[in-house]
Amino acid sequence: MFEDAEKGTSLSRAEYKAAVPALRAELLNVQFDLKNAGFPVIILVSGVDGAGKGDVVHHLTEWLDPRGVETHAFWETSDEERERPEYWRFWRAMPPKGQIGILFGSWYTNPIILRVRRTIDTGVLDRRLDHITAFERMLTDDGALLIKLWFHMSKEAQYQRLRQLEKDRHTRGKVTPTDWKHHKMYDRFLRISEHAIRRTDAAHAPWTLIEAVDANYREIETGRVVLKALQERLQRPPTKATAPAERIPAIQRNAVLDAIDLSPLAPPQTLKQTLRRHQGKLSRLAWKARRKKVSVVGVFEGWDAAGKGGAIRRVTHAMDPRLFRVVPIAAPNDEERAQHYLWRFWRQLPRAGKMTLFDRSWYGRVLVERVEGFAQADEWQRAYQEINAFEEELTDHGIVLLKFWLHISKDEQLQRFEARKDVAYKRHKITDEDWRNREQWDAYELAVTEMVERTSTDYAPWTLVGGNDKRSARVQVVQTFTRALKKALG
Amino acid sequence: MFEDAEKGTSLSRAEYKAAVPALRAELLNVQFDLKNAGFPVIILVSGVDGAGKGDVVHHLTEWLDPRGVETHAFWETSDEERERPEYWRFWRAMPPKGQIGILFGSWYTNPIILRVRRTIDTGVLDRRLDHITAFERMLTDDGALLIKLWFHMSKEAQYQRLRQLEKDRHTRGKVTPTDWKHHKMYDRFLRISEHAIRRTDAAHAPWTLIEAVDANYREIETGRVVLKALQERLQRPPTKATAPAERIPAIQRNAVLDAIDLSPLAPPQTLKQTLRRHQGKLSRLAWKARRKKVSVVGVFEGWDAAGKGGAIRRVTHAMDPRLFRVVPIAAPNDEERAQHYLWRFWRQLPRAGKMTLFDRSWYGRVLVERVEGFAQADEWQRAYQEINAFEEELTDHGIVLLKFWLHISKDEQLQRFEARKDVAYKRHKITDEDWRNREQWDAYELAVTEMVERTSTDYAPWTLVGGNDKRSARVQVVQTFTRALKKALG
Repeated sequence: MFEDAEKGTSLSRAEYKAAVPALRAELLNVQFDLKNAGFPVIILVSGVDGAGKGDVVHHLTEWLDPRGVETHAFWETSDEERERPEYWRFWRAMPPKGQIGILFGSWYTNPIILRVRRTIDTGVLDRRLDHITAFERMLTDDGALLIKLWFHMSKEAQYQRLRQLEKDRHTRGKVTPTDWKHHKMYDRFLRISEHAIRRTDAAHAPWTLIEAVDANYREIETGRVVLKALQERLQRPPTKATAPAERIPAIQRNAVLDAIDLSPLAPPQTLKQTLRRHQGKLSRLAWKARRKKVSVVGVFEGWDAAGKGGAIRRVTHAMDPRLFRVVPIAAPNDEERAQHYLWRFWRQLPRAGKMTLFDRSWYGRVLVERVEGFAQADEWQRAYQEINAFEEELTDHGIVLLKFWLHISKDEQLQRFEARKDVAYKRHKITDEDWRNREQWDAYELAVTEMVERTSTDYAPWTLVGGNDKRSARVQVVQTFTRALKKALG
Repeated sequence: MFEDAEKGTSLSRAEYKAAVPALRAELLNVQFDLKNAGFPVIILVSGVDGAGKGDVVHHLTEWLDPRGVETHAFWETSDEERERPEYWRFWRAMPPKGQIGILFGSWYTNPIILRVRRTIDTGVLDRRLDHITAFERMLTDDGALLIKLWFHMSKEAQYQRLRQLEKDRHTRGKVTPTDWKHHKMYDRFLRISEHAIRRTDAAHAPWTLIEAVDANYREIETGRVVLKALQERLQRPPTKATAPAERIPAIQRNAVLDAIDLSPLAPPQTLKQTLRRHQGKLSRLAWKARRKKVSVVGVFEGWDAAGKGGAIRRVTHAMDPRLFRVVPIAAPNDEERAQHYLWRFWRQLPRAGKMTLFDRSWYGRVLVERVEGFAQADEWQRAYQEINAFEEELTDHGIVLLKFWLHISKDEQLQRFEARKDVAYKRHKITDEDWRNREQWDAYELAVTEMVERTSTDYAPWTLVGGNDKRSARVQVVQTFTRALKKALG
């Protein structure tokens, strides 16, 4: 595969100088058009050490308008990064729509290096590469243009290049002992890289190999590859969102919800005692989680007036306010709208030993956004998969993830709506929107059923809570927290 | 001073229970009104250890709608925090307009603790307290409501409380060895705290002492203090921005700008060589800065078409793109608009060893916002002081701060505007806004002059760059970088 990038292609200084002005003008033009095109551009810069990746990016950013480009290097992780799932640092670096993000290192570095060092075996490597494929698919499905560049040079050329960098006092600092260590492992590194490239080379996110020995050639070629990718993407007519016929889930649409027991679990006095006991436990467990650096993410979904707020309060009641945050999810702000819909949730993930409780969550994509038509059919349909992958990342990192659907009957909701009008401090809790949502009860029922069906995984199962009896609902929620934490804390 | 908070005030359980419903209803009401009131509420929770601050905040957040409150504890600093000036972590925690932020610990903790431990002397303590006063003044000038609570209990009461917490297995985890260490230093701690409170007790940010021995009393009292502060603030008629008569600076309005030498510094060939030499130096210095963890912030201001972009490019040309970021400053997004105007710059400060170049900056406040009337007269007038304090925080942290005003004559600007129309890749650089700004040349000249006069400090002087000759301008800019870095890196 790499033979194509060992042909000795080069450009003279004159050819280089002749090519730059037109290339630059065209790059600036497409960048200008990009601003309003509504998608982000993510350029991954990978390849062998010493292939001049820094120089290439250097010139690329010089040619472009710096106001629309950001370069991110993934050097040492900070503790804030280590305390979150691996991809958190990449989500932080995601360019918003209309902008270009150049990522040095990217999500490929770690799996390849770990395999080169034999820290992981081929099976793990492949799983991680498949995860990458799904991740990239998610980005491009959302409209992102992904340009993956691999800069190649032969082992001999790498040796010459490293020596040359070391000789020049201007560039000496760039060569690290790691570079030489990698050089010794060149063959193994190349073999594994080739495997990674082949496995992740997809129509939606193709790799481009660039011959890196000649500086002039690699720079112009990079500019041209980026230009071409952008031009093609900008010329592609916006894909009309095809709204396929609503798929009817195979199951009875309300089988899941109908199965929820809405009756009280026990007499009020018993429930009161149980709740108190579990809150006591939760209080201790929350401090223990902090000491052991175990994070918790709680997701609260449910019908309007199902008691999400009350349930969250019973959980937080048991905990020191320094240990948790409640994040209410309403309409995204403009910074969030310029990103993938999961971005706003990634940025809210708790640090080690802390808890984030989402009052509504990423499931809005397959609930309100689906029902109200804010998301296209293809968008919410692929969201199930995206959400499962996201939640797997959380739990793989050791985060305790708890998801609650608070269920009440339609009659119960009506009674609560009416009651809210009368209680002074609840009067702000009932809005016209609540009444409008109620009219869509059947559509939501279908959406909820499908959501539970498609996103109940072994690592992140839904807890379906019967909410007609408030006490019972709260006991179930708090109990779920204590049991999960107890299990996680050993 | 603390005698007032040692009176033994208490509330029975019955009194407590009777008080809660009305208090809660009223808190929810003011919180509802706060949403659209356009100012943030910052509640500082301070006081002696064991005074039940956690419990108080706990109940307060329970009474309030959690969707409008966020609690921040300032425990151990993360490395990302340590790599920025001290207040970076507080800026991160600032509530947006319409919301409540409860800060545990706040900016008072560190100065008081350091003085208790004798790490700093009274002089340093007082300087830090005065800095706090100015900082709080800045927040409240911008509209923030600052509620500073100090929870007090006597030494004997503290002893009893800590013992009691330790006896209860639910709360044992809360008592740390530090708490006991602080208990031994109670008298000293109290004396220094009293000094700090007195010195920072101001009309715009008054302290409230709360007697903390009785749990019922301290919680209800806290709720009432917060409620009262919010009610008073919400009832205050919005202060009409008084536009005072434009102050005429004492100096000749264009004396500063007229003094800038606009002629070439040397023949083109010499300048070319000098530029290249300094870029080489800068390349090495940037890597050295990374190794030594010295950060750099560059600010580029200047007339439209003065060559800011070109100057920035000559700086970045010399550096590996992984070492710097260029941050273009345009209109704030809605997340930024909901914060103090300096917030968006705080969030862009570089990590240790990195460089951020601002293409336009916080000086927009006293330039475009002043001239176009986006900022009220009192807002931009106090901005000089706010900016000076901000920049002092940066340089105190060891950040190398460089500020450039790129100056060209009015004729030169016209020529460049005309020329831009013709060059393909520059055509996007000239807009109607540029022409409109040009019409305001005199107003800008006054604003620039006053800006330079008022914000040229010994720790952050302006570099005024004659820009009619582009080469000379770029040499001056790059030279300033190399000289400053050389000095900082020893």
